[in-house]
Amino acid sequence: MKHVVIIGGGFGGLWATRALARERVRITLIDRTNHHLFQPLLYQVATAGLSPADIAAPLRHILRRQKNVTVRLDEVTVIDKEQRRLEMKNGTLEYDYLIVASGATHAYFGHDEWAPHAPGLKTLEDALGMRAAMLKAFEAAERETDPAAAKAWLRFAVVGGGPTGVELAGTLAEIARHTLKREFRNIDPTRAEVLLIEAGPKVLSAMDPGLSASALKALRKLGVTVRLNAPVQAIDAESITLAGETLACRTVWWAAGVAASPLGRQLTDNTDRAGRVPVMRDLSLPGHPEIFVIGDLATLAHHGLQVPGVAPAAKQMGNHAAATIRRRIRGEAGLAFRYRDYGSFATIGRMAAVADLAGFKLRGVLAWWLWLAAHVFFLIGFRNRLVVLVNWASSYFTYQRHARIVGR
Amino acid sequence: MKHVVIIGGGFGGLWATRALARERVRITLIDRTNHHLFQPLLYQVATAGLSPADIAAPLRHILRRQKNVTVRLDEVTVIDKEQRRLEMKNGTLEYDYLIVASGATHAYFGHDEWAPHAPGLKTLEDALGMRAAMLKAFEAAERETDPAAAKAWLRFAVVGGGPTGVELAGTLAEIARHTLKREFRNIDPTRAEVLLIEAGPKVLSAMDPGLSASALKALRKLGVTVRLNAPVQAIDAESITLAGETLACRTVWWAAGVAASPLGRQLTDNTDRAGRVPVMRDLSLPGHPEIFVIGDLATLAHHGLQVPGVAPAAKQMGNHAAATIRRRIRGEAGLAFRYRDYGSFATIGRMAAVADLAGFKLRGVLAWWLWLAAHVFFLIGFRNRLVVLVNWASSYFTYQRHARIVGR
Repeated sequence: MKHVVIIGGGFGGLWATRALARERVRITLIDRTNHHLFQPLLYQVATAGLSPADIAAPLRHILRRQKNVTVRLDEVTVIDKEQRRLEMKNGTLEYDYLIVASGATHAYFGHDEWAPHAPGLKTLEDALGMRAAMLKAFEAAERETDPAAAKAWLRFAVVGGGPTGVELAGTLAEIARHTLKREFRNIDPTRAEVLLIEAGPKVLSAMDPGLSASALKALRKLGVTVRLNAPVQAIDAESITLAGETLACRTVWWAAGVAASPLGRQLTDNTDRAGRVPVMRDLSLPGHPEIFVIGDLATLAHHGLQVPGVAPAAKQMGNHAAATIRRRIRGEAGLAFRYRDYGSFATIGRMAAVADLAGFKLRGVLAWWLWLAAHVFFLIGFRNRLVVLVNWASSYFTYQRHARIVGR
Repeated sequence: MKHVVIIGGGFGGLWATRALARERVRITLIDRTNHHLFQPLLYQVATAGLSPADIAAPLRHILRRQKNVTVRLDEVTVIDKEQRRLEMKNGTLEYDYLIVASGATHAYFGHDEWAPHAPGLKTLEDALGMRAAMLKAFEAAERETDPAAAKAWLRFAVVGGGPTGVELAGTLAEIARHTLKREFRNIDPTRAEVLLIEAGPKVLSAMDPGLSASALKALRKLGVTVRLNAPVQAIDAESITLAGETLACRTVWWAAGVAASPLGRQLTDNTDRAGRVPVMRDLSLPGHPEIFVIGDLATLAHHGLQVPGVAPAAKQMGNHAAATIRRRIRGEAGLAFRYRDYGSFATIGRMAAVADLAGFKLRGVLAWWLWLAAHVFFLIGFRNRLVVLVNWASSYFTYQRHARIVGR
């Protein structure tokens, strides 16, 4: 029986695994953590609205009924393409087919020295670190006797005006203005300053210009100070410098750039500037029809096909790689991947959102309700605990432990 | 206006704070974390049944309407009794009245070298560390190719047969036998061995002998291997030694001993063997009528009054210290503290418990339902999110962020 090894339990790897459920293959799914993470709501963990267990589920639990899968908590260090063999921290594995879906991490455009002062948001650990930093900043301001120092603790800068930056800045503004309003005695949290810093001329630049303008308006209404055309020049522990101006600021969050997983360099010397691996139209690695690269790690740009780094794209690529493996096993040729763009959302705080759904544009409360419905729907789709939380007592009878989440 | 400083936001400190709500005093409540922790359910976090935010709430949020309180996230390092002054990591404070309610930590009976291999359960960080260790042990066993090594990963030892040890061991046995049953491919989690190790002749030795025997039976029915009269002789990263026998074991949890907070030694040279501070009958420090010591840090044993280290006792002492401060301010003498014992519970897994309620003894399913009702009642009592979780969407409208939990 052919052995299919899948690296990464995100949307790409998990969807590929599931798509092979009825195939007579042996599958090993490797991840550094024990869980699948619903990344679109990760900003809610960073901003203390949801707990890690609300948006993550153990891969073993999701796949417990799929008997052809072995889940392995491990980290791949070497991909030996010639021997068709992986080296991991805790052992080795040989494969017949390999799907690499190890995703992306933050990129600081050559300024790695900013990383400790401006954490990015990719894992639950990142989110918990950001949550702790945000809460401790308000606590430090409350303790502070020097007003200038207190002000630096109450200034929050989010770098990057894409969907994640917009969601983080909008939520931060709401926390300061509403959540914490009455809870402090020495400071007024509503006077906290939330900066959203974007190097380009608009927020949500990938969306329709009208929606981008709506988002800007909604952010300003929430009290976010949006700085456009303001590339960051320096970040350290106590300040951020943009457009020649240095602001005292103790909390900076990074939502400006991603780089593909370093495993890409194990596959080719030919990665693009963001570290992505150029793949064939069937998503296989050139010269290696048994290796597939999907999700944020892959690029089809050289074929003129721009596939965004979003969950639906990763799922579609996971399904496609699985289908191609099925065809290969039967001796059929792979088919070209086609990306179906069903649209995109961005939320701006509590009751506002913008949505671009296959050319159909929405904004405001209606877009927000659609966003909520879509996210609840997809969360339930992977048996998340949200439904179970509705009645915590019932978990005693179903014998499930919903918080089985462990980092690396 | 008199300044009352309260160290510690646990049951003792929080109840004292609330009891002074209508008094014309200025209160500062200092804690190393930002939250009050519902410690009776901490074992549920360690065993992945609940998330940290389910059993913790920000002190600021709990006390937001009590205008005479300032909450301060800080750590007291020095208590200067003569100057009535505290030194903290981030500043100093002067007090007129001081309530020290800094609780207890683990004690290893002179074997501090066991601490890294046998963590105890006092904080959310402890619980998350235990949860991670438990989950990683099953993952390591699944990866392991040597059967003896896998067996060591599948052996879990809980040291101490008190309520916490019984709850941890019972829950661990259920996780192995039920929760994880179908999720592994290379190991059978139901063959995991859960040891409960007790130096004395029975579990739950503080309870009625009949209930203690019931608990032992219930534990054995769940599959827990209970070792009585088995003092631990050694613990290292790979084994535990008891009664002359060394067992290969990768996960050891410590529920055997507590020591009072090191702040006790700032108050007196006269602490007892567990580090507790002997107090007057009105809970004040001998020679210092303006200082009160309550909860797990205090002992009244020299007055012949055994007060157990449980939440109801800490709450009663908090209320009493507050009442005594009220009397002092009015020039009245303090009254002697009287402990009212309403009984105690211990759960053994999912549907069994033992309860000793003022001489009324219960066991089995009925005791478990009472346990559940009591805990849900007390959780809601401090505005916990459990009720709110019932409808997560509603949190968008109330503007609350329920997971605002940060460690030290």
